[in-house]
Amino acid sequence: MVNGVSHPCKVVLAASIAKALASEVHNDLAKLSRKPHLHGYLANKDPAARMYADWTGKTCRENGFDFTLHDVEREDLEDELRSANHRDEIDGVIVYYPVFGSERDRTLQWTVSMYKDVEGLSPQLISNMYQNIRFLDPPFNVQKSILPCTPLAAIKILEHLHVYNSFLDYGKRLFGRRITVINRSEVVGRPLAALLANDGAEVYSVDVTGVQQFSRGSGLRRQKHETKDLEGWGLEQCLPISDVVISGVPGETYKIPTNLIREGAVCINFSSEKNFDPDVKERASIYVPAIGKVTIVVLLRNLVRLVQNKPEESGVGGA
Amino acid sequence: MVNGVSHPCKVVLAASIAKALASEVHNDLAKLSRKPHLHGYLANKDPAARMYADWTGKTCRENGFDFTLHDVEREDLEDELRSANHRDEIDGVIVYYPVFGSERDRTLQWTVSMYKDVEGLSPQLISNMYQNIRFLDPPFNVQKSILPCTPLAAIKILEHLHVYNSFLDYGKRLFGRRITVINRSEVVGRPLAALLANDGAEVYSVDVTGVQQFSRGSGLRRQKHETKDLEGWGLEQCLPISDVVISGVPGETYKIPTNLIREGAVCINFSSEKNFDPDVKERASIYVPAIGKVTIVVLLRNLVRLVQNKPEESGVGGA
Repeated sequence: MVNGVSHPCKVVLAASIAKALASEVHNDLAKLSRKPHLHGYLANKDPAARMYADWTGKTCRENGFDFTLHDVEREDLEDELRSANHRDEIDGVIVYYPVFGSERDRTLQWTVSMYKDVEGLSPQLISNMYQNIRFLDPPFNVQKSILPCTPLAAIKILEHLHVYNSFLDYGKRLFGRRITVINRSEVVGRPLAALLANDGAEVYSVDVTGVQQFSRGSGLRRQKHETKDLEGWGLEQCLPISDVVISGVPGETYKIPTNLIREGAVCINFSSEKNFDPDVKERASIYVPAIGKVTIVVLLRNLVRLVQNKPEESGVGGA
Repeated sequence: MVNGVSHPCKVVLAASIAKALASEVHNDLAKLSRKPHLHGYLANKDPAARMYADWTGKTCRENGFDFTLHDVEREDLEDELRSANHRDEIDGVIVYYPVFGSERDRTLQWTVSMYKDVEGLSPQLISNMYQNIRFLDPPFNVQKSILPCTPLAAIKILEHLHVYNSFLDYGKRLFGRRITVINRSEVVGRPLAALLANDGAEVYSVDVTGVQQFSRGSGLRRQKHETKDLEGWGLEQCLPISDVVISGVPGETYKIPTNLIREGAVCINFSSEKNFDPDVKERASIYVPAIGKVTIVVLLRNLVRLVQNKPEESGVGGA
């Protein structure tokens, strides 16, 4: 018997998901022939960037990875990164942005080899992501393409919550799900909408300019998502039909109107502010208030993938 | 990489689900101190009933259960059932209906002890089901109440397909799901709608008289479902918003309009006829064309539950 009437919503903290994911990472790590070594490059004076760098190092060491932090002058960084690309003992590279704080930072992202890019920001990796190309070495499909950390963290959370239906075939596990993503930044919102649509969801990507639908079309006919503008749509149209709502709007003032959210929806906040009102717990089946702790484990997972992709680990010749 | 564009729908045959469920039943069976013994009572001359009785026996023996078939005169059946209720070596009883083919058959259903009723048709069991009372012995909650076989088969199929989200707490695993059930018979459609709503779904129960909503209300506030008429609703309103469509309409002519079904819906047919057009495979994420083979395994599962409920097996005193 179901005794009494309890709160309908399960609040899931990022720490619990991070722990489960870390355990998977440890299993993969144990199968490697050596300890992966991540190198961080810090070329700004921002104390927050240094704190994040220190936190990366601590998390690496706690989880069985090596980490070396390089303090460099920003004018030297591009050369340092080129050098890192050729040093075999460097498995992964992370750069603490902003460096120049301008478009010039993009050329730094392009400098990191895609074979060492734990953040998944290399042009080829980004392109693979949008094109729904999941491997670096077709047709062998042994070397996995690396996905950007924050969008991938959201995916891993949805897998953990069983929103991905593992009964369905890989690549179609969101078929039948409608997902609203509020934020369409190039860093998180747009890649996330594309990833979800590539996995079969119908995605409503919302920002101040309007709503775009990302989907693979009727019956998942297309191999990758395409987008179309939903003229006249807003949250009023998206939220009542969405099984999942993922929000990452910066700023303290933004709040999603709870009354528009579908009963039993899964709600995930990836903003540093709380985009959902506390009363979301009266409506949602699952609420994840923050995702940061998952993102850092995803970074370690990407580092493991980079090492697994090496010919000597995958057991396959050629790179 | 997802190569080529394949069929979007996974067609799942009852045999594969029955096999997985049988494996669970075998695990439970191995923990019992003895082999459960089902007794069947056949009191009509219908060859179809005899075939079904023979099939029950075969399935029992193949799965490690004992089965004895009793051929009895229908006027003797009530006495036979009363006698069976008191014989310790009889673990479960199944009666092959129709016997009188009239309301009188109901008194036969009421005669079988609820502690031996593998079909879950005893008034107390039916009442427990509608009231969302899951155990026979509150507050100890060791003895499970038995659910009717065909509705339970549909539930087990939805669990197998991961429509039940096992990440959510037991009793809320359908929260956020909208399910259309076409058929509101007392034998299958209405109990099924009630079971789904009791597990957290919003259910649209459809028959020729109209549409009823079964749900536990906003935020699953109620402990059991309540129903309300949805005036003016039809399939046009239900299907486009339903994640799951379950249909059991008798007759060859009935077909569900595929164009109304939501992209990526899970579609299950429990009619002996095909209620879904073949083109449902162009729209659904999962299609289960028939469920009969699951129902018979559910009957064995109920038999195991009956034996587990006995004090000597559960290790708990009192019955």
